[in-house]
Amino acid sequence: MLQPELKLRRDKIRSLMAQQGIEAALITCNANLIYTYGCVVSGYLYLPLHSPALLFFKRPNNITGEHSFFIRKPEQITELLKEQGLPVPTKLMLEGDELPYTEYVRLAGLFPDTEVVNGTPLIRQARSIKTSIEIEMIRRSGMAHSKAYEQIPSVYRPGMTDIEFSIEIERLMRLQGNLGIFRVFGRSMEIFMGSVLTSDNAGYPSPYDFALGGQGLDPALPGGANKTPLKEGQSVMVDLGGNFNGYMGDMSRVFSIGKLSEEAYAAHQVCLEIQEKISSIARPGIACENLYNTAVEIATKAGFADKFMGTNQQAKFIGHGIGLEINEVPVLALRMKQELETGMVFALEPKIVIPSVGPVGIENTWVVTNEGIEKLTNCNEEIIDLEAFYKQEE
Amino acid sequence: MLQPELKLRRDKIRSLMAQQGIEAALITCNANLIYTYGCVVSGYLYLPLHSPALLFFKRPNNITGEHSFFIRKPEQITELLKEQGLPVPTKLMLEGDELPYTEYVRLAGLFPDTEVVNGTPLIRQARSIKTSIEIEMIRRSGMAHSKAYEQIPSVYRPGMTDIEFSIEIERLMRLQGNLGIFRVFGRSMEIFMGSVLTSDNAGYPSPYDFALGGQGLDPALPGGANKTPLKEGQSVMVDLGGNFNGYMGDMSRVFSIGKLSEEAYAAHQVCLEIQEKISSIARPGIACENLYNTAVEIATKAGFADKFMGTNQQAKFIGHGIGLEINEVPVLALRMKQELETGMVFALEPKIVIPSVGPVGIENTWVVTNEGIEKLTNCNEEIIDLEAFYKQEE
Repeated sequence: MLQPELKLRRDKIRSLMAQQGIEAALITCNANLIYTYGCVVSGYLYLPLHSPALLFFKRPNNITGEHSFFIRKPEQITELLKEQGLPVPTKLMLEGDELPYTEYVRLAGLFPDTEVVNGTPLIRQARSIKTSIEIEMIRRSGMAHSKAYEQIPSVYRPGMTDIEFSIEIERLMRLQGNLGIFRVFGRSMEIFMGSVLTSDNAGYPSPYDFALGGQGLDPALPGGANKTPLKEGQSVMVDLGGNFNGYMGDMSRVFSIGKLSEEAYAAHQVCLEIQEKISSIARPGIACENLYNTAVEIATKAGFADKFMGTNQQAKFIGHGIGLEINEVPVLALRMKQELETGMVFALEPKIVIPSVGPVGIENTWVVTNEGIEKLTNCNEEIIDLEAFYKQEE
Repeated sequence: MLQPELKLRRDKIRSLMAQQGIEAALITCNANLIYTYGCVVSGYLYLPLHSPALLFFKRPNNITGEHSFFIRKPEQITELLKEQGLPVPTKLMLEGDELPYTEYVRLAGLFPDTEVVNGTPLIRQARSIKTSIEIEMIRRSGMAHSKAYEQIPSVYRPGMTDIEFSIEIERLMRLQGNLGIFRVFGRSMEIFMGSVLTSDNAGYPSPYDFALGGQGLDPALPGGANKTPLKEGQSVMVDLGGNFNGYMGDMSRVFSIGKLSEEAYAAHQVCLEIQEKISSIARPGIACENLYNTAVEIATKAGFADKFMGTNQQAKFIGHGIGLEINEVPVLALRMKQELETGMVFALEPKIVIPSVGPVGIENTWVVTNEGIEKLTNCNEEIIDLEAFYKQEE
């Protein structure tokens, strides 16, 4: 990562710190280190309001540079700050929503005379407005993601189960450079590379706040494919995370085994219509709840209110900010007053689950521009018939 | 999960709680919920010392059962406990090393007159001694892991890079039922399914406390393959996590492209000798540091002190407890006085990195029995020549 870019990101955080009278930040969680330091290390970035950031690192042991200090334990930080002539901050922020309790208490204890506050919401706010380099990285990620998705029909074989289909698509994603790891904000939401859902498994309620659930292969990892065979007349939705360079792109596409019911095609068109409508009204200044309400209104008018965003358990959002993590700010949800701002990046995912057919709908990654929003994940959005494709290739 | 098994696990935790005067536990982190409730939910298991556990769940919305209560937020828990006639605990434990700071403070705040303590070490201690059902699950996981590894030579193609080789092995693992997710205790150590290391990439220092590092594909996820071509005279070590049912088995095997240097084969034999020696002396009552020191002694005597467990950055352990997470108690490390106990399960991984050749060595999963230790991951431990295998199959 180039230094000017890191400086820009750090200054975005500093500017919010200044508004709250916070004189320094101690940053150590991986996504925030990638954001402010450009890579993952085992260590701490100390970010003062008015002087350059310092890195205190434990591993790897080959870090060099003027502002880098090897430490064995965080207790050495305060002494090193003193040696560098830095004042003890009056107010310091730690990653309170991310650091484990005992680690937070330990780090706060290094600054006994300092007011320590939770800096996670502030850093998430800074991260919600992407820099032009970040947008370019997400754009490239979207291109790789699309390239992998375009090959999906070629890996389908009759008789496959959802998990076998998923495994072949995971491989396509990895061959395109997907790093595999799926970063989620918060301790609880776990998922492997994403989900491939067919038939009524799409309505299986999830313990998580993902758009759709799925039973999964084992109670130890609920969500996604559950060995349902891909059968004639069923749809299958592919929704894998697009982490090609640290940034989580998000994209869903729907396939069919032969022909689906008329209702399923109609529902799919409703989702495309929602996407079309939202992309025409979304722009800086619009409240997220307006977008959510617009989507629900269209789905309801079309008669899909009870199948929109799930059946047994319905998600109360239609999109979510994305970046280094899959669930960033803003959230396009009920009662969410937050307004879109230029530079925000989000996934928009209107989806409908048709009982005994499966999921339909669409998901793309969008960036908010000065004038509106622009799609970063471009590939065929219609339902592709895998069986027809297979027969044609044979 | 069968109720008697869950009761057994809960009682193991209760018995340690009783020793410390802890009257109740509130458990919500995924690995601990799998342990005590049998699956992941979004919710809280309230575990009193002297009465049955209660589940307070938010999602999924289809949980039923006598002791299960739907909640919208954790603040409802105290009222529901009262309704159930349960006393406010004098001393309560929360998962202090796992819960984020703000969540811990919020949950502790529900019990203003209660002494709240960090229960993570206690739960980890309970989890370190596996039940016979857990051992059986790890045994089955080890069988699936071995079955996938036996097929590794069949996916090698001349000209592959390390990452291409890794992707094909990941697919083999998934087809055997691997859930994919790699659970690690602690917030910082991130890894996809494991690592495939060849040549000098094996000596690349990691930000994490894994046995070996590797540069990885991107600074956003250091570790593992870095697109090094698999070349004649180089070794390649496959070390993927074996999560087939929630339990993380661990196994490494080494392959070669053609013939390796004599030194590499000698080093590999030293690692097998270390494994042999340790498996002959390990039994309940032996201190972990003895096993570590024995390994270092053998490696040193053979002239590999500076290449044992890495070159540029050497890991200071030769094994680690495994279970629902890859890094459980005990740790077979320097100065670790903890003694082995019947029912512990650990990975033993003596490894040596040979400059300009790559990594050699072995890793298996072992269970501590009354008499010694038993291997749960059984497949060929010699270095397999991929090039020779490929030519033979052609």
